[in-house]
Amino acid sequence: MNKRLLLAGLAFALGAGMTQAAFAQVKPEILVKQRQAAMTLQGKYAGPLGAMAQGKAPYNADTVAFNTAMLDALSRMPWDGFAESTKDVTVKTAALPAIWSEPAKFKEAQDNFQKAVQALVAVSRGGDEAAQKTAIGAVGKTCGGCHQNFREKQQ
Amino acid sequence: MNKRLLLAGLAFALGAGMTQAAFAQVKPEILVKQRQAAMTLQGKYAGPLGAMAQGKAPYNADTVAFNTAMLDALSRMPWDGFAESTKDVTVKTAALPAIWSEPAKFKEAQDNFQKAVQALVAVSRGGDEAAQKTAIGAVGKTCGGCHQNFREKQQ
Repeated sequence: MNKRLLLAGLAFALGAGMTQAAFAQVKPEILVKQRQAAMTLQGKYAGPLGAMAQGKAPYNADTVAFNTAMLDALSRMPWDGFAESTKDVTVKTAALPAIWSEPAKFKEAQDNFQKAVQALVAVSRGGDEAAQKTAIGAVGKTCGGCHQNFREKQQ
Repeated sequence: MNKRLLLAGLAFALGAGMTQAAFAQVKPEILVKQRQAAMTLQGKYAGPLGAMAQGKAPYNADTVAFNTAMLDALSRMPWDGFAESTKDVTVKTAALPAIWSEPAKFKEAQDNFQKAVQALVAVSRGGDEAAQKTAIGAVGKTCGGCHQNFREKQQ
């Protein structure tokens, strides 16, 4: 029962571009901190998957299943943090102005990532190692797709 | 199909005390950053729920469902970040030594939180506003239960 309800929660949220009025009141600095936190955790759970897909770490089906479930949630978290109010925030951020000058392109990059994560979710419990590794690689590409145009080059 | 698989992923992880060998290699400073990120995001999604439960924000069933789904995942994320290797880390952290000197008590506080989140998950899609608010209050108490003993008092 628990599980079906959770499931419903996620299904309902996906793609609907969930907006939460409460967040409109959140200080820009907090929004930046929250979106950066989501990216940090995406890295935590995507990193080990990337290592497996590239053969740098041994394949572990349980890690694929768990980390993918975490990414399913995390892939929904950063986007409302890129509110217009954060455009000129003084805290350190690698977010580029293109986020706000090219919103449609930014949204497309988000969607590509979320779709790739959902494709990974679909194979994450099936035990098909090759399919999982392919799906992981596709997720990785969509991370880069967004970082390429919307994040300052990292040192 | 997607959904059933995601679900399976979460069910499998719950309570099993998922340990991920890959993380053993992660630098202590990164572990601290990741666990703090999880706490930041718990705040992001729990905050609006707490405001509703306390009557400080209007009730919104969609927000309850979505934020609870996010908390379901987030409630599993911080704990492996409190690795022994982070005990003497030099980066700023409010984590108290009791985390490592009273591990059973710390684990119990985590479990109480995770159980309270699961209880909220169970009612989060049922449309029973009163039950949801009660469950939200119970989650809030378990946040405090951990912070009371294991986090430096906040200014």
